[in-house]
Amino acid sequence: MKNISLLGSTGSIGTQTLDIARAHPEMINVVALASGKKTLKVLADQIVEFQPTLVAVPDSEAKKELEELLKPSNSSCTILTGSKGLVECASLDEVELVVTGVVGFLGVEPTFEAIKKGKTIALANKETMVAAGALVAPALKRYGASIIPVDSEHSAIFQSMQGYEISDLEKIWLTASGGPFRTWSLEEIRSATVDDALNHPNWSMGPKITVDSATMMNKGLEIIEARWLFDLEPERIEVVVHPQSILHSAVQYKDGSIVGQLGVPDMRLPIHYALFYPERVESSRVPRLDLRELSQLNFEAPDYEKFPCLKLARQIAAEDNTLPCVLNAANEVVVEYFLEGKVDFISIPEQIERVLTLHKPVSKPTLEDILRADQWARQEARQLLLAI
Amino acid sequence: MKNISLLGSTGSIGTQTLDIARAHPEMINVVALASGKKTLKVLADQIVEFQPTLVAVPDSEAKKELEELLKPSNSSCTILTGSKGLVECASLDEVELVVTGVVGFLGVEPTFEAIKKGKTIALANKETMVAAGALVAPALKRYGASIIPVDSEHSAIFQSMQGYEISDLEKIWLTASGGPFRTWSLEEIRSATVDDALNHPNWSMGPKITVDSATMMNKGLEIIEARWLFDLEPERIEVVVHPQSILHSAVQYKDGSIVGQLGVPDMRLPIHYALFYPERVESSRVPRLDLRELSQLNFEAPDYEKFPCLKLARQIAAEDNTLPCVLNAANEVVVEYFLEGKVDFISIPEQIERVLTLHKPVSKPTLEDILRADQWARQEARQLLLAI
Repeated sequence: MKNISLLGSTGSIGTQTLDIARAHPEMINVVALASGKKTLKVLADQIVEFQPTLVAVPDSEAKKELEELLKPSNSSCTILTGSKGLVECASLDEVELVVTGVVGFLGVEPTFEAIKKGKTIALANKETMVAAGALVAPALKRYGASIIPVDSEHSAIFQSMQGYEISDLEKIWLTASGGPFRTWSLEEIRSATVDDALNHPNWSMGPKITVDSATMMNKGLEIIEARWLFDLEPERIEVVVHPQSILHSAVQYKDGSIVGQLGVPDMRLPIHYALFYPERVESSRVPRLDLRELSQLNFEAPDYEKFPCLKLARQIAAEDNTLPCVLNAANEVVVEYFLEGKVDFISIPEQIERVLTLHKPVSKPTLEDILRADQWARQEARQLLLAI
Repeated sequence: MKNISLLGSTGSIGTQTLDIARAHPEMINVVALASGKKTLKVLADQIVEFQPTLVAVPDSEAKKELEELLKPSNSSCTILTGSKGLVECASLDEVELVVTGVVGFLGVEPTFEAIKKGKTIALANKETMVAAGALVAPALKRYGASIIPVDSEHSAIFQSMQGYEISDLEKIWLTASGGPFRTWSLEEIRSATVDDALNHPNWSMGPKITVDSATMMNKGLEIIEARWLFDLEPERIEVVVHPQSILHSAVQYKDGSIVGQLGVPDMRLPIHYALFYPERVESSRVPRLDLRELSQLNFEAPDYEKFPCLKLARQIAAEDNTLPCVLNAANEVVVEYFLEGKVDFISIPEQIERVLTLHKPVSKPTLEDILRADQWARQEARQLLLAI
């Protein structure tokens, strides 16, 4: 029986995690849940079903509302609030595995606290490694904690190198769908609308991540994430465009052999894998890929000129200061403005680059340095965007 | 430093093995070599270069000729003859790894002797597992020996399941190029010539194996090989046609995740891997696959009606008696006759099936039973073929 704590229980990663826990009640025990304030009804149902001992919500208002929702059920659990609550959920003594399904910067602090407690973390929160990799990666070693990536690409890399070490690798192949604009000309991209950008060919994801896929910033952020997760120089992380998203990524060993992981594009697979790692547990929830029905897989080089966000991210991927954090924060703000129709698609990389240029990077950052850089970048981006 | 014995040193596997040994003189020490009588000049050069302590040739005539060739070089090695010599090479005390690159039935006995000595065997000889699997597989467990497959497909499976056990698998995906007749109609195959059958799209191999690829018997034999190598029911070994031969094969775990190995179609990769296993050693000899240049990979279901040899092999793959040995022997003879223009391509499966039908299978066969079944099948096939 594995005791898990689930941060972001009502989001996409969270509900899929609980779906797997539901199918394996003899193997997964949910001891803590945390969610945002917009989904308290869903959280209340989860509490009734999984009976966690600890729950975290954003504030005391949400706590009150949740208590009201739980009244008819007779559920007895401690409810904490704020980032303290999240941190408590992540560092509970009886928790073996912390699933960080929280979106955005909110995930960094509790994950860092879980690391300090030497826990294993199933990490679906990109920010932890992208913005705070320079802080988190050394801490993992110091506290003997470990991360099992939940991102489909990083999970594929992790799965493909089982039985081996990073030192056995020549490089990593990070696959990218190429997004909706893969076959568009630069001229066509210039007039891309929000709807165009939200029309992702393979994965059904939230709007922010879908736009990141259209700019290919997602792949840039994943280079940074991979760099820290696998302790590998960015030059050894190669991006290959593979529109069908069937080969989820691969590793190339020193002897030239490439080992990769394939599957249907479905997040339940990497979540399931992370939940039961190092075991392989039978899954009824993961759809099977029949190779005989694949027909065709395509591969091509990414176009760094057509996707300047990818280029930007690659340029700063080797930095062990606050620049990656600023890249991530500025991107979030600019994409938000794009989704509101206030910035053109083509201007996204320019605006991010402006923020990067203005930033004074802090080397070997602390958690405070990173929080500060994140705040600064968001504010700076908003000011720049208001001025256009 | 790993001491190796190389059986079949002048063949395709043998010369490629020595090419790798040449590149890693600090890691591979060649202590024994064995080859056939047609290539004594090549063997003599190998002896001068690698200075093995033991050499095996087929007979005393070959020994005399080899001694003559070695005179100017002052090489001092023991030269043995016949199957005894092969067995001696395979079971030398100081040998850690036996590379069985011998083609055909000749490889079975020395491999079996190496197993009895608990050695590790890099196995490129199909017959050992196809014809003698029912004998060899239990012996591996009994004597604590192990096999590292050198066949590109089985090496891919072996590589893809590192860190895991057979019990973690749902199935194996064996890839097949589909051979030169993949896109031909049954009508067109009916008039296929020897030249047509020898025109393999991806791999450059000997004529026998190339014809096996055209009939898809090679994939049938590989199902049998995989069944014994990986201790897996044949129903869990799925064949998928993949004309580009880039994905060399894959495993599907119980959780639905597929992990596969990719590379250029080049035997140096599985040989290199087997020589250094479990280590991954940098290779300058293995050409790298650039995924960005792949363009297109295709996959489709095999057509068991168009390729009855594959169907035949699948039908008997679960047998743990002498039937697989008879299938292999009959196929060798019939293909030999086909290459001589004495049998039509379309008749190959029929003739093999006739021999299978006439055979009285021996259960739990000894080495003698297998040798006898092999001899019987060859004789029977020849008689049947003379009668048409």
